[in-house]
Amino acid sequence: MNDARVTLAHGSGGMAMTRLIRSLFLETFADPELARLEDAARLQLAEGRPAFTTDAFVVDPPFFPGGDIGRLAVCGTVNDLAVAGARPAYLSCAFILEEGLALADLARVARSMKTSADEAGVRIVCGDTKVVPRGAADRLFVTTAGVGVIPPGIELGGDRIRPGDRILVSGPLGDHGAAVLDARGELGLTHDIASDCQPLNRLTAALLAAVPVRAMRDPTRGGLAAVLNEWAGACGREIVVDEAAVPVREAVQGLCELLGLDPFYLACEGRLVAAVPEAAATDALACLRADPAGREAALVGEVSEAGTAQVVLRTVFGGQRLLDRPEGEPLPRIC
Amino acid sequence: MNDARVTLAHGSGGMAMTRLIRSLFLETFADPELARLEDAARLQLAEGRPAFTTDAFVVDPPFFPGGDIGRLAVCGTVNDLAVAGARPAYLSCAFILEEGLALADLARVARSMKTSADEAGVRIVCGDTKVVPRGAADRLFVTTAGVGVIPPGIELGGDRIRPGDRILVSGPLGDHGAAVLDARGELGLTHDIASDCQPLNRLTAALLAAVPVRAMRDPTRGGLAAVLNEWAGACGREIVVDEAAVPVREAVQGLCELLGLDPFYLACEGRLVAAVPEAAATDALACLRADPAGREAALVGEVSEAGTAQVVLRTVFGGQRLLDRPEGEPLPRIC
Repeated sequence: MNDARVTLAHGSGGMAMTRLIRSLFLETFADPELARLEDAARLQLAEGRPAFTTDAFVVDPPFFPGGDIGRLAVCGTVNDLAVAGARPAYLSCAFILEEGLALADLARVARSMKTSADEAGVRIVCGDTKVVPRGAADRLFVTTAGVGVIPPGIELGGDRIRPGDRILVSGPLGDHGAAVLDARGELGLTHDIASDCQPLNRLTAALLAAVPVRAMRDPTRGGLAAVLNEWAGACGREIVVDEAAVPVREAVQGLCELLGLDPFYLACEGRLVAAVPEAAATDALACLRADPAGREAALVGEVSEAGTAQVVLRTVFGGQRLLDRPEGEPLPRIC
Repeated sequence: MNDARVTLAHGSGGMAMTRLIRSLFLETFADPELARLEDAARLQLAEGRPAFTTDAFVVDPPFFPGGDIGRLAVCGTVNDLAVAGARPAYLSCAFILEEGLALADLARVARSMKTSADEAGVRIVCGDTKVVPRGAADRLFVTTAGVGVIPPGIELGGDRIRPGDRILVSGPLGDHGAAVLDARGELGLTHDIASDCQPLNRLTAALLAAVPVRAMRDPTRGGLAAVLNEWAGACGREIVVDEAAVPVREAVQGLCELLGLDPFYLACEGRLVAAVPEAAATDALACLRADPAGREAALVGEVSEAGTAQVVLRTVFGGQRLLDRPEGEPLPRIC
């Protein structure tokens, strides 16, 4: 099926759709609950509070160094559950396909979803496929939803952050956003930046087991700036970030300088930001660094006593400036 | 905001997105769990087996007599849970918006989702919004996922169907598919057919409480023909349908004749098909008819002893013909 393409019949509810679903999705995802092809999948959940999340993925291009739209969709949903303190367990996936999409590309995305789901230890148990005519969508969009369980005793939230708390990031910022921009090729650049796209649920489980955590987020759209501004608003305190302490790869910094972008606003898809009590900061950093997904973790800031809900950056030049909420950043379709 | 439109900034993770989410979705959906704006919603589930489903909606046009893409998305997901025997409880919704979409249209869709969710007694607790450039999507796509609970003791499936079982439908077939085709206006027809789009969870709960049910499905893409062929395959028996007993509105029949379509293949979005033991058929019919959503229910067929997995239609002319599986029906984007 090397030059086979998606046709409208693949979305019509008929035999063509059944064949596509059986030969491609059922075979690749290889899950007994999915294979029942019933209207709803039946789940078994561990003790605790069920958690539920969803994300639509429209990234352009759908394949980029370090990942693709399928890996992004699985990791994005797994990570939303993970940073909420949940153990991700089940995923749904809904495809919107443009007529004419190469079936080989769809198969590649499906395989990538399966690999990523296995890596995260989650099951893809239900799905849907719609096909729209040529020109009514751009290649393929993937929407995943996820169900997980928050173990008893876990309580997280920006409103739990206290003065003196420390802010950590699990690795360099902006690799994902920069990789996608770079992969578009329009820039005439070749930085060979790879996306950081990866599941974070083992890292979050380890961190939650090791230290008391106030809040966790994954800095996707809007980057670190968006997360910290939300937290400053939620806890009503000033958050101070030490620019020199924030890990940013040289290639990402270079691309940002060329394009007039700020890595603090670039999306990551495999990093987390955590706020922990001062006394737990050293252990938290060690815990993150002990996992391959957090090897380059860093302590980047702290929560001040000041009751102004804002984020202040202590610059490498010794000055300071406000790290504003992102307004309308010029980076559509990086996720 | 009458002539305001969706811009790329509405999907960028910045202030414009925050304003859109707060002023439109949070206000309309009015749910405390959604309003937390955390990465995942926390659920409380009743005793029983959790169930999970998803559907993407790409209907063209997004507004049609009897419904719109928002109502369709809520009802479609509620109904997938309901026919699996679950009580729907929570929905997620992910929007993919084309740059330039009128915000008034988006607000209308959101209000319709809220009205439909209230009607079904479910909560919209998490969501996502992405914006793609003009031309990269057709107005708006909505993907919903749903979580519900299958009460203890409920077991359904096409493989549970036995010879002698009766087949019921909860109302006239094809209203939805015909309404959407009609609403496209390309046909130069004005049949004023309204979609049957409605939540079915109260109807399914009533039916499950009243009689033993073998299997239930909602005949969406591929219509009644798709459901019965799946069941025939699952139970390995012939299913015989009495054409004269199947309710089809005159306007739908008229449109089908004009277009060379068969109402047995047209999608419904507010009908269910049920298989029940012969002894329960009369009670099942009475139960369906007692609910406004099943007022026009009918007994339409039975499962024969014959061990050939096929669906046979006894025609109004006294003959019989195979009701084949749908191949590639010429009806894209009706859901």
